[in-house]
Amino acid sequence: MEDQKLMNISVPTAVIDREKARENIRAMAAKAAKQQIRFRPHFKTHQSAAIGDWFKNEGVREITVSSVRMAAYFADHGWDDILIAFPVNLREAEEINRLAGLVNLSILVESEEAVNELDKRLQSEVSVWVKVDTGMGRAGILWEMEEEVEALCRKILASPTLKLTGLLTHAGQTYHVSTTQEILGLYAESNRYINELKNFLVLKLGVKLQVSVGDTPGCWLSEDLGAVDEIRPGNFLLFDAMMMDLGVCSSDQVAIAVACPVVAKHPWRNEIIIYGGAIHLSKEYLLHEEQPIYGYAVEIGNVGWEFQGRENYVISLSQEHGIVHLSDELFGRVKIGDLIGIMPVHSCLAVDTLGHMLDFDGNRYETFRTR
Amino acid sequence: MEDQKLMNISVPTAVIDREKARENIRAMAAKAAKQQIRFRPHFKTHQSAAIGDWFKNEGVREITVSSVRMAAYFADHGWDDILIAFPVNLREAEEINRLAGLVNLSILVESEEAVNELDKRLQSEVSVWVKVDTGMGRAGILWEMEEEVEALCRKILASPTLKLTGLLTHAGQTYHVSTTQEILGLYAESNRYINELKNFLVLKLGVKLQVSVGDTPGCWLSEDLGAVDEIRPGNFLLFDAMMMDLGVCSSDQVAIAVACPVVAKHPWRNEIIIYGGAIHLSKEYLLHEEQPIYGYAVEIGNVGWEFQGRENYVISLSQEHGIVHLSDELFGRVKIGDLIGIMPVHSCLAVDTLGHMLDFDGNRYETFRTR
Repeated sequence: MEDQKLMNISVPTAVIDREKARENIRAMAAKAAKQQIRFRPHFKTHQSAAIGDWFKNEGVREITVSSVRMAAYFADHGWDDILIAFPVNLREAEEINRLAGLVNLSILVESEEAVNELDKRLQSEVSVWVKVDTGMGRAGILWEMEEEVEALCRKILASPTLKLTGLLTHAGQTYHVSTTQEILGLYAESNRYINELKNFLVLKLGVKLQVSVGDTPGCWLSEDLGAVDEIRPGNFLLFDAMMMDLGVCSSDQVAIAVACPVVAKHPWRNEIIIYGGAIHLSKEYLLHEEQPIYGYAVEIGNVGWEFQGRENYVISLSQEHGIVHLSDELFGRVKIGDLIGIMPVHSCLAVDTLGHMLDFDGNRYETFRTR
Repeated sequence: MEDQKLMNISVPTAVIDREKARENIRAMAAKAAKQQIRFRPHFKTHQSAAIGDWFKNEGVREITVSSVRMAAYFADHGWDDILIAFPVNLREAEEINRLAGLVNLSILVESEEAVNELDKRLQSEVSVWVKVDTGMGRAGILWEMEEEVEALCRKILASPTLKLTGLLTHAGQTYHVSTTQEILGLYAESNRYINELKNFLVLKLGVKLQVSVGDTPGCWLSEDLGAVDEIRPGNFLLFDAMMMDLGVCSSDQVAIAVACPVVAKHPWRNEIIIYGGAIHLSKEYLLHEEQPIYGYAVEIGNVGWEFQGRENYVISLSQEHGIVHLSDELFGRVKIGDLIGIMPVHSCLAVDTLGHMLDFDGNRYETFRTR
């Protein structure tokens, strides 16, 4: 076993199961294609040009990113239709202007102050989506504030450089429920809200407006994606412990594990200490009977990993250490110096902190460096 | 204001208050010197060669790090007495051997398996501390398992390359209490436990053994550091919201804030959205009446920041967004496009994720890249 590349790693390393990830892409792309809805996947999950090519192979041409820097990275790697799904950061207006001269760039706006400032500072044409909050409570104007949205749209329509494209929402509230039935309900509700607002605006303004929606739980589980022009899920590529526990995917569909060296065993507590901490896995957590857990331990080998049940979990994370509880059986099999896999709670954050991924054939996927 | 370097930043950036940080170093170094205890500060808090020089100026010659890679970084920057305070990772034995040929290297051991393996793989002499758990419940052999520790010490004494130095503990349980009185009690208790074990071993083995202890809360607050040879605190350099809320430091002693662009205002909730998320601040949290909070918002200007009270706090963090609640007064003053400071919950993690720091004179401090 020791001559394989994965088995030779010495520090915490993200491992991607390529076939599972590509199957997840195919499933999501096929659903969108069948319903003639534009598939603009969120690339913040993997942040990797090489993995971006897997999407290209499935016909994807438009992408979503979460920062101006990430837009620049993918523009450098040949993508020419990029949506920055984050309320526009005016401090990066100059770079936005530069990128808009190179690619079809779309940004999110939710205030008249932002429009005023962009009008002053942009020369290149930029597509604008109005960010609408349909219940998540994070970014965006509330869907029921119709007059405010109308006034903002009028301002954008009057701008020489901003091109009003439509309304965009992210129904991230689907991450905070406990049943798939609730996810489906929230996804449909969010779509109803944004379409009500759209219909109001189309009547008032006499222009065409598109609708863009985004969350993995809703887009993955809903048979019918509804009256939308575009979907922007990202997490479905890798999934993670959060998606598995929410019932969105099965353990077999999770396409990421973090391989971590075992550095100590404490038989008096059935716990091991791993080299793998908050700086590798992030401190994202799930609650198990009101106790936070930071991922599941899985058995990892040369060709894949095996989920061994929820009694194998990460109890706590320090900066570099993790404390992991194991079943009697798994505890008996693990030795100091072995690798153990951790299915992270949130794959996007683990990929960001770890900085690159390996697959089981020894391919290394570099990711965009946010720092 | 806009011509100052800090005020020109466009993305989330760690800002260090140099004078506060240097004052924190001086205070800790002076206490150790007065009690003739070796001060071996933990450099995982800042991970920066330039900031390491501030310690050198206070007479520090021995340091602590949390990984083999970090040891290599500081060895490259001229430090020649380095303790890796992490249970030895056998997968990095080759690199440990290399470093031990260059500098005085110390490692932690807590199992006979590790000693067997190191004996096979190391040629250079390495100092070894036995890691003891005095109540934290993370790494180390339990302090009351005297026979096990004795057997391990005998094994180390018989090794040709491993040099038994003493017993080491990290009483990190001091981070999880609610009063400074409890911190003092746990620090003293931990010291009592490790000295009982040491006395037992000295009697049994007839060798000298040192004691090394480590946590910032205990070392900062205790007037009398007790019967120890070495202290290894790190966090006191910058402190953070966790240390402030625990009563270890005042708001004026916190030497780090993360400057974040304001991208949206939601007056219907007294909330702002910042460009500053889990990948910048980490998801470390504190509980406020059972609700997690992810840092405090502080007003930041050209020369410093001002803590404005606990009603200004980070409600939640996504990958790149933060939702921040502000008082009426502060909400009224903040504009879209401004910077706001966030006092992070855990400075070590924020520094690690952000990758460099600025001070108010525009100096930039590069940090070790873990990725």
